[in-house]
Amino acid sequence: MQSIDLNCDLGEGFENDSLLMNYITSANIACGFHAGSAKTMQQTVAMAVKKGVAIGAHPGLPDLQNFGRKQMQISPADAYQMTLYQIGALYGFVKAAGARLHHVKLHGALYNMAAKSSGLAMATAEAVRDFDPSLILYGLAGSEMIKAAESIRLKTASEVFADRSYQDDGTLTPRSQTNALITLENEMTAQVLLMIKHGQVKSVNQNIIPIKAETLCLHGDGEHAVAFARMIHEELQKEDIVIKVV
Amino acid sequence: MQSIDLNCDLGEGFENDSLLMNYITSANIACGFHAGSAKTMQQTVAMAVKKGVAIGAHPGLPDLQNFGRKQMQISPADAYQMTLYQIGALYGFVKAAGARLHHVKLHGALYNMAAKSSGLAMATAEAVRDFDPSLILYGLAGSEMIKAAESIRLKTASEVFADRSYQDDGTLTPRSQTNALITLENEMTAQVLLMIKHGQVKSVNQNIIPIKAETLCLHGDGEHAVAFARMIHEELQKEDIVIKVV
Amino acid sequence: MQSIDLNCDLGEGFENDSLLMNYITSANIACGFHAGSAKTMQQTVAMAVKKGVAIGAHPGLPDLQNFGRKQMQISPADAYQMTLYQIGALYGFVKAAGARLHHVKLHGALYNMAAKSSGLAMATAEAVRDFDPSLILYGLAGSEMIKAAESIRLKTASEVFADRSYQDDGTLTPRSQTNALITLENEMTAQVLLMIKHGQVKSVNQNIIPIKAETLCLHGDGEHAVAFARMIHEELQKEDIVIKVV
Amino acid sequence: MQSIDLNCDLGEGFENDSLLMNYITSANIACGFHAGSAKTMQQTVAMAVKKGVAIGAHPGLPDLQNFGRKQMQISPADAYQMTLYQIGALYGFVKAAGARLHHVKLHGALYNMAAKSSGLAMATAEAVRDFDPSLILYGLAGSEMIKAAESIRLKTASEVFADRSYQDDGTLTPRSQTNALITLENEMTAQVLLMIKHGQVKSVNQNIIPIKAETLCLHGDGEHAVAFARMIHEELQKEDIVIKVV
Repeated sequence: MQSIDLNCDLGEGFENDSLLMNYITSANIACGFHAGSAKTMQQTVAMAVKKGVAIGAHPGLPDLQNFGRKQMQISPADAYQMTLYQIGALYGFVKAAGARLHHVKLHGALYNMAAKSSGLAMATAEAVRDFDPSLILYGLAGSEMIKAAESIRLKTASEVFADRSYQDDGTLTPRSQTNALITLENEMTAQVLLMIKHGQVKSVNQNIIPIKAETLCLHGDGEHAVAFARMIHEELQKEDIVIKVV
Repeated sequence: MQSIDLNCDLGEGFENDSLLMNYITSANIACGFHAGSAKTMQQTVAMAVKKGVAIGAHPGLPDLQNFGRKQMQISPADAYQMTLYQIGALYGFVKAAGARLHHVKLHGALYNMAAKSSGLAMATAEAVRDFDPSLILYGLAGSEMIKAAESIRLKTASEVFADRSYQDDGTLTPRSQTNALITLENEMTAQVLLMIKHGQVKSVNQNIIPIKAETLCLHGDGEHAVAFARMIHEELQKEDIVIKVV
Repeated sequence: MQSIDLNCDLGEGFENDSLLMNYITSANIACGFHAGSAKTMQQTVAMAVKKGVAIGAHPGLPDLQNFGRKQMQISPADAYQMTLYQIGALYGFVKAAGARLHHVKLHGALYNMAAKSSGLAMATAEAVRDFDPSLILYGLAGSEMIKAAESIRLKTASEVFADRSYQDDGTLTPRSQTNALITLENEMTAQVLLMIKHGQVKSVNQNIIPIKAETLCLHGDGEHAVAFARMIHEELQKEDIVIKVV
Repeated sequence: MQSIDLNCDLGEGFENDSLLMNYITSANIACGFHAGSAKTMQQTVAMAVKKGVAIGAHPGLPDLQNFGRKQMQISPADAYQMTLYQIGALYGFVKAAGARLHHVKLHGALYNMAAKSSGLAMATAEAVRDFDPSLILYGLAGSEMIKAAESIRLKTASEVFADRSYQDDGTLTPRSQTNALITLENEMTAQVLLMIKHGQVKSVNQNIIPIKAETLCLHGDGEHAVAFARMIHEELQKEDIVIKVV
């Protein structure tokens, strides 16, 4: 039986967190660098515990003004330190809540940089491993992040997207290109089902390429976030795909 | 045999950290809110491990501009959250270094506010306990902080100062008063020895009052920080007072 | 003919700014300390220019996490400096847009502290005067802020609220009290009309007390912000009250 | 008669500001993004006024943790906004002091990025021009920054360095290369004199290349900052080079 984890970035100041928790199996909680605060971390951890959603740290670049979305020229040592700091900070709330930290997923520009740079990928993977080698690292399917984590024997979850188009080499089409986003719901659903059921995705050039889909990213912001989460949840159930945490 | 712990606030951006580590037994490491960064936290933890100095978290108010020295009107919930966040953040580096987190000491305005407000004292004590009930809470001798920690069975260390004068009720003379600071070295030494050997301090009104001295605060900033640390270290040894961690 | 200015805090990250601009005559633009950024300042100034709304700086405490709503124990020198900094920063965008800076209104905890403390009131009034003595200082009607500004011959605008109840001495009922907020629309409207037409307000003890109403604060956040702005705008017009900038 | 301006970055938290003011003709004052605060800005402006040193804004990237030294992937619009914000903020203190804003010099990574990217250069030049077209823009001699400023008719000052080596194309040797820094005092002095007296510099490949030297950067940090400033000041005077603001 096929299965998929549904993850979502939460505790970032949007208003849908509580509703989204009904449809997801793992929550990536912002740790105060790109968004979130000690207060939102405590609240979001409490909510996840209540809903039985797996808790992950969601470290980002220290840049509240730009929501961690601008690339900064950081060294692997910087990446190691900021990742470790944020994992620890979230762990404080997880520990106090008597819960368990389940995974780590990088945010925004840090996620993208570590997907391409083997140096940053290894540094962040080591930060995760040095904190707790049983944590699962979520990363872009086929990326340097996944390779680095596997090379030091961390468990990984390959992440796919419903609303992003893919290149022939399996990378995401950069947002700067006009065809980067998939906006039609039926196309998103089709892409998700193809990825989960057949381990494939149709590239922007209409080629069928292999992709590993272990966790699907649902967006937490935007007007339609909750509606889309509910819809995809229903579609997956219709197709007898088991929705469960990795 | 009498003994005393020598603690110092470190990782706050001053230059003496490495030298001071030679004279102290416990380090309170800034966690990025009032001073410090992920980088200084990693470095200072590494230095403490190397020197065999006990490691403590040093949470402060989120105010880099004022070094956490301005009082903010925060609720107990705020205090709980910011304390827990910072303990966790430092723990990340302690864990990765294979070391042990030993204690927590609040910083600046947060320290002073929790010394007087039973609500803030209880909230921060609970943050420490909820993270790890075996941690030791350092607080102003005779303060609400110590009372709150004891009431929930946390281990405590009563802190005394060499360079601050005391009121008849055992509280520190506010810095706004002209006689708040003791500036002569021999007077500082005399105060320290009286506190450790006899559990007493002479108040600004020349009354002898009882005081519990378990850990002595050495300042990490200022030109004479290292010289004073070395001097007091020598004086204590001359008097056969054992310098050891609480 | 009676008149009133309608002011609103904008550029604080809520989504109604563009719609609210249709109903107000003066905009208080956040300057990056409690909310806002260089980007939102540029955008909000451009919007105000387009809509013909008078532009004011809205300096707050440096505390993005708490939206500038927690009191900090700052000195008059601190208040002077942070006010001057933020006025200057906004002025950059006003100048580049070829527009004119019209007024200054403090935000949140800084507004409340300067309403009560004559020292903070004088310091912030001096910051406004030292930047440009032709600026108008908006402050709580009857407050220390208004008194300090008048004492150094700054023009002032006395601000009143539709949704806050007043004490017998003309101060706002603290939010900690249950009757602090007026929630019924017809009561808000009645209070506003009484203030503007008769210079009076009914206190929580049902006493009629005098109040000077030169500018009415409309809130920029909350679901009903736009609806309320439109409604009060219509009510004022029905009553032949001229809506114009001070 | 040949002349040179001596500029220095000040208000960045180092301790030599007051002494350095004796040897320089223009001060670039940090504006709170990479270093500095409202307080240091007020103090440094006051000091410059007292010493008769020309006052410049020194905008940097919003990154206190890394002192504005890490490159961030910002758009021209971002650069425009952050530059304008910081110029305005410093202008507040200049205006209140009854002084005049003389120039703008970018800091750290922003300076380096605008030296190479024509888009960022034009955006920051426009921010300067839109604030006040009479301001002088200091930039790396021969850089895109100078070209962009000249293209919109801003006055410029070409900046040279005593302690950095140059490539054959007139750019600075990247700090990542071993021969980036000149560390011997006599070599620094020789380079400065050749640049000012003959408009030339010897490249790392021992080629003599032309360079325009209108302002020399003196560093404000480091143990030898004051000693070096005094020394170069004396050497220039010996050579009858007039030290005066551009």
